[in-house]
Amino acid sequence: MASRVGFALFGLGNMGLLHAKNAILSPRASLKWIIRNNIEDAQTFVKDLNLQARCTTPNRLDEVYSDPEVHASLICSPSTTHDQIIQDSLHAGKAVFCEKPITVQEDSTRKCYELAESRNLPLFCAFHRQFDPSFMSVHKRIKSGELGQVRLIKMTSRDMALPPISYLRTSGGIIADSTIHDLNFVLLLSGSRPKTVYVQGMHFQPELASIPDMDQVLVTIKHENGTLSLIDNGRLAAYGYDQRLEVLCEEGLLTVGNRPKDQVSEAGHHVTTESRIHDHFTTRYDQAYSNELEHFLDVLQGKSKLLVTKDDTVETMRLIRACNLSIETGNPVEYDQVI
Amino acid sequence: MASRVGFALFGLGNMGLLHAKNAILSPRASLKWIIRNNIEDAQTFVKDLNLQARCTTPNRLDEVYSDPEVHASLICSPSTTHDQIIQDSLHAGKAVFCEKPITVQEDSTRKCYELAESRNLPLFCAFHRQFDPSFMSVHKRIKSGELGQVRLIKMTSRDMALPPISYLRTSGGIIADSTIHDLNFVLLLSGSRPKTVYVQGMHFQPELASIPDMDQVLVTIKHENGTLSLIDNGRLAAYGYDQRLEVLCEEGLLTVGNRPKDQVSEAGHHVTTESRIHDHFTTRYDQAYSNELEHFLDVLQGKSKLLVTKDDTVETMRLIRACNLSIETGNPVEYDQVI
Amino acid sequence: MASRVGFALFGLGNMGLLHAKNAILSPRASLKWIIRNNIEDAQTFVKDLNLQARCTTPNRLDEVYSDPEVHASLICSPSTTHDQIIQDSLHAGKAVFCEKPITVQEDSTRKCYELAESRNLPLFCAFHRQFDPSFMSVHKRIKSGELGQVRLIKMTSRDMALPPISYLRTSGGIIADSTIHDLNFVLLLSGSRPKTVYVQGMHFQPELASIPDMDQVLVTIKHENGTLSLIDNGRLAAYGYDQRLEVLCEEGLLTVGNRPKDQVSEAGHHVTTESRIHDHFTTRYDQAYSNELEHFLDVLQGKSKLLVTKDDTVETMRLIRACNLSIETGNPVEYDQVI
Amino acid sequence: MASRVGFALFGLGNMGLLHAKNAILSPRASLKWIIRNNIEDAQTFVKDLNLQARCTTPNRLDEVYSDPEVHASLICSPSTTHDQIIQDSLHAGKAVFCEKPITVQEDSTRKCYELAESRNLPLFCAFHRQFDPSFMSVHKRIKSGELGQVRLIKMTSRDMALPPISYLRTSGGIIADSTIHDLNFVLLLSGSRPKTVYVQGMHFQPELASIPDMDQVLVTIKHENGTLSLIDNGRLAAYGYDQRLEVLCEEGLLTVGNRPKDQVSEAGHHVTTESRIHDHFTTRYDQAYSNELEHFLDVLQGKSKLLVTKDDTVETMRLIRACNLSIETGNPVEYDQVI
Repeated sequence: MASRVGFALFGLGNMGLLHAKNAILSPRASLKWIIRNNIEDAQTFVKDLNLQARCTTPNRLDEVYSDPEVHASLICSPSTTHDQIIQDSLHAGKAVFCEKPITVQEDSTRKCYELAESRNLPLFCAFHRQFDPSFMSVHKRIKSGELGQVRLIKMTSRDMALPPISYLRTSGGIIADSTIHDLNFVLLLSGSRPKTVYVQGMHFQPELASIPDMDQVLVTIKHENGTLSLIDNGRLAAYGYDQRLEVLCEEGLLTVGNRPKDQVSEAGHHVTTESRIHDHFTTRYDQAYSNELEHFLDVLQGKSKLLVTKDDTVETMRLIRACNLSIETGNPVEYDQVI
Repeated sequence: MASRVGFALFGLGNMGLLHAKNAILSPRASLKWIIRNNIEDAQTFVKDLNLQARCTTPNRLDEVYSDPEVHASLICSPSTTHDQIIQDSLHAGKAVFCEKPITVQEDSTRKCYELAESRNLPLFCAFHRQFDPSFMSVHKRIKSGELGQVRLIKMTSRDMALPPISYLRTSGGIIADSTIHDLNFVLLLSGSRPKTVYVQGMHFQPELASIPDMDQVLVTIKHENGTLSLIDNGRLAAYGYDQRLEVLCEEGLLTVGNRPKDQVSEAGHHVTTESRIHDHFTTRYDQAYSNELEHFLDVLQGKSKLLVTKDDTVETMRLIRACNLSIETGNPVEYDQVI
Repeated sequence: MASRVGFALFGLGNMGLLHAKNAILSPRASLKWIIRNNIEDAQTFVKDLNLQARCTTPNRLDEVYSDPEVHASLICSPSTTHDQIIQDSLHAGKAVFCEKPITVQEDSTRKCYELAESRNLPLFCAFHRQFDPSFMSVHKRIKSGELGQVRLIKMTSRDMALPPISYLRTSGGIIADSTIHDLNFVLLLSGSRPKTVYVQGMHFQPELASIPDMDQVLVTIKHENGTLSLIDNGRLAAYGYDQRLEVLCEEGLLTVGNRPKDQVSEAGHHVTTESRIHDHFTTRYDQAYSNELEHFLDVLQGKSKLLVTKDDTVETMRLIRACNLSIETGNPVEYDQVI
Repeated sequence: MASRVGFALFGLGNMGLLHAKNAILSPRASLKWIIRNNIEDAQTFVKDLNLQARCTTPNRLDEVYSDPEVHASLICSPSTTHDQIIQDSLHAGKAVFCEKPITVQEDSTRKCYELAESRNLPLFCAFHRQFDPSFMSVHKRIKSGELGQVRLIKMTSRDMALPPISYLRTSGGIIADSTIHDLNFVLLLSGSRPKTVYVQGMHFQPELASIPDMDQVLVTIKHENGTLSLIDNGRLAAYGYDQRLEVLCEEGLLTVGNRPKDQVSEAGHHVTTESRIHDHFTTRYDQAYSNELEHFLDVLQGKSKLLVTKDDTVETMRLIRACNLSIETGNPVEYDQVI
């Protein structure tokens, strides 16, 4: 692998822009192509930042895949397009950095990983929590074992604003679309397979009933080693993008709180106000996105193994199915019976 | 009722001492009798604080019940003794202030209330959360309706140190012994009957398996109005007595955090330390205990209605049964079917 | 000294009530007399709490001083009355617990201590900060020496509401009336004599100009050992009774923050509010007042030496003079030249 | 001015790198030249990030100043080099963005501004506090007037690690080198000229005595409108880069706290630890540096006036002299007499 990794970037939405900027500032990365339906967006971006990258559309990719200066695909396009791009990229000998999910089905996800293995190319699923300094620090502390048995993992994960109903109709449901992050992280932290999974939830937005979907869920997991996990994931939180964790261990409690937007407070005659939290994942997890890219570059340069493995991703997909089964039946689901 | 309320105090453990001190400092209350198996304890207390109270033992109560200067019983003795003391007190025409629970069974609890009603005497069950300034303030804010629909109630409630196994063997189980406080408060806050109740939990202390009992439970409740509740109640928390609440509403989030023991922090080369939280309910809820007594005095003087009603207490007992049924079956329980 | 210490309480204002209640709850103390101009107040208090104490007025004290059951005077009357009560008490063989200041002049303060020494009776000046758990904890940590040289002590001390102008006219000025607490604590913490003292300040309340007095001062002290101290003391803070400390040492920073009144926060669409701080010293320092009495009882029972010594109090009075001299001259004052 | 502003960057230390990266990510900016004594550094940077910029050394600037694609100089070189670069840049028709200070003397600073005025070119002095979201927010709130008269401004400003003594020998002293930021911001916030200035301080690092210099100062300012200011600026703080502000107004208190590095806390049996604060200005003020560049681009594109004016900078230089005079004399200095 060359010392400077050439990237083909698929998509230029929120996530595409973020990863593009991190690639621009990294001496180890170079943006070679931007693929975007609306090619003018891509061209403007390239011109504005004075980049030496070319632009194309998703239906004209031959030149991209055959470009020897492209070493990796950086996939930030809609989830339903991932499967094809991953396969084509791997077949073309490109490594893959992919926003979650790898694909929208467990089967096809597994197949993508198998293809990557057969090609001996890294396939990286970018779960941001694992690269956030705070969440990473808790993970590391748990793994040290100094706090003893993990009794309880509690995650709070709430988006600020309900997405448009049009988005929700095709989102695949709150579990696959949103709780996926929490499920993935709970698997990592607990280090133990789920035994029993139960989901309770509610559609406070009435339109969701007909999909059907929920906008607030509580996922209770009992793991094989006795650890309990509780995920509270919702689509609406008036006060901001709420991302918290607490881990109760035999010897103490680890907590990740919210990141404040600023450091201002005001104390008056009647009210004391404090800083607001971030509104959105783009600013809350800015450091995580930068760390993801650097990790991927480390992997390509042989300095690290992939921190998010096939197993991590595939088990996350399976846990999604277990959750959805619990929602359908209204009962706890034995994880072993989710095949 | 006389302007100064005379009390017969049953028990002089942690709770008995607390209520005794509040009674001593209240111009509206007067301690007339202290009933204690170990009568020397009671006598020493009376002598130390120079009180004009008499002492007796639980098997010599005639003089207490027939004392016209005793207007109310203040019951802080073991739970299994409550039923008899309440009945005798009410028959003797005394009002009753009783530490939770009224009795250990729903049936006998109901009968105590019926007796109180027939005698037209107040029977007060002292659930401390309802009298804590912070929890009260959240309740009031929710009731105002300004924050819209309550989506999610999350309570965290963890004792610092596991009680001795001898205590646990006769405690009636974590739900009836400890979660009772959370269940009671969740009923109050939600203002809506439970529809489905699910309990998941674990016995991290191996000795508990044979009782059987758990030392960490997660109770998930879906209420009839759609509100979700989640209670995390445990017997062990290395860092202190952890009592928190958050209520997610349509228009915002209300939070009750832990009370720090002091206001000191230290920032050094490697670590920044902050204040510890309280270790124990006696100091965490000191204001609540004082408020309970003042509320009871208000009721006796006709200035307030009982804030904890028969229905509150009886529904709490029923919810305990629903939780225990879920533990036994491993499945969610429909509350309506718990008769 | 008897195992139960009998007290004559002078004054029944805020401080008198607080100390009375602590004495009532202490098995080692007994209230024997309450001295109050308005004797009805005292009589009502005694009757309400069912006490075995007698009441009298300041002009009829013979029976108090000659009562062999009175072992100590507890002085909470106006500052200008202290000198006489202290002298009479000591002459009558009573120990003395006195709210700050001992007297309003350095000379008479010194004489009171000399009388106490000659009579071999304790004279205790109740500076509350030294008995507050948080401030005590910082003091202890500093004394351990583990944090190295103390570079900077910063105290913030602001009352919530400006007292009535009538009070201010006779208060003796902000330094003697209010900053005295901070000066006393800075002397204790620094453990080093002042070298140079400078006061800058302002009268934001225009009426103060004519007294003359200030309602916000900044006192800068350089101590002989190089430590710098900065006191920010004011008469008005819309948001509460602001009592903070920070101590910057070679190896770290110690901080005492404000005590919140409750533990509630609310996060809405536009504003996040947090707990308010206490409004008043009576609730902020409740534990300190209780600790003061217990310390005094320890001293009387030979279990402790007086923690507030003659030197502490006399040097505080001298530092007040240094501050006032700096205000008068507008220049820094060399402490050695304040004789 | 062209829609894309071409920059010549002088210096590539901490500040140079920061501004370079902001320029690279801004569609409105373009790095044309990097001037660096060690030209290899600059060349590596350009190569690593694939930039279309040229590199040169400070003694070969003709091509830079005559380059029509260079619209502005971005000066991050040592303070003593500023004067010449500013003059040459302005003479060459380039706008100037300069790290503080403009020059090391008040006179030469004034002359630079006069030259900029005569050339009708913006000269921008980058004081980061004015562009930090938290400090900006407090400034805006004060200016609204809703909190009434400003009584007291307190700034805390402490570097984490003492710079090498070699740096300190040529730094010009703590006031000009470090306190300058606080002095500048206090002038802005108070909106009122200083009347009396007093500095007390200490050299805890013994080597400083011979320079002479101090590593901890307390600056007390009384402004003409009665507002008091207190700056606590130091060179050493074991726990991080401490940057705080509080402003006490008639109607409330505004506070800027420190920015935590992460959001992790841990509560164990004996200690509860919380997040650390940032170590260094480069990460603490990252948003401010980005805002500075955007503001400068706004000015060049006619969208904003310069927020840091000649008067702001010149008065800051004068206040530095007042402070140094107070240090020399040991007495308060009347600002009007500092000519």
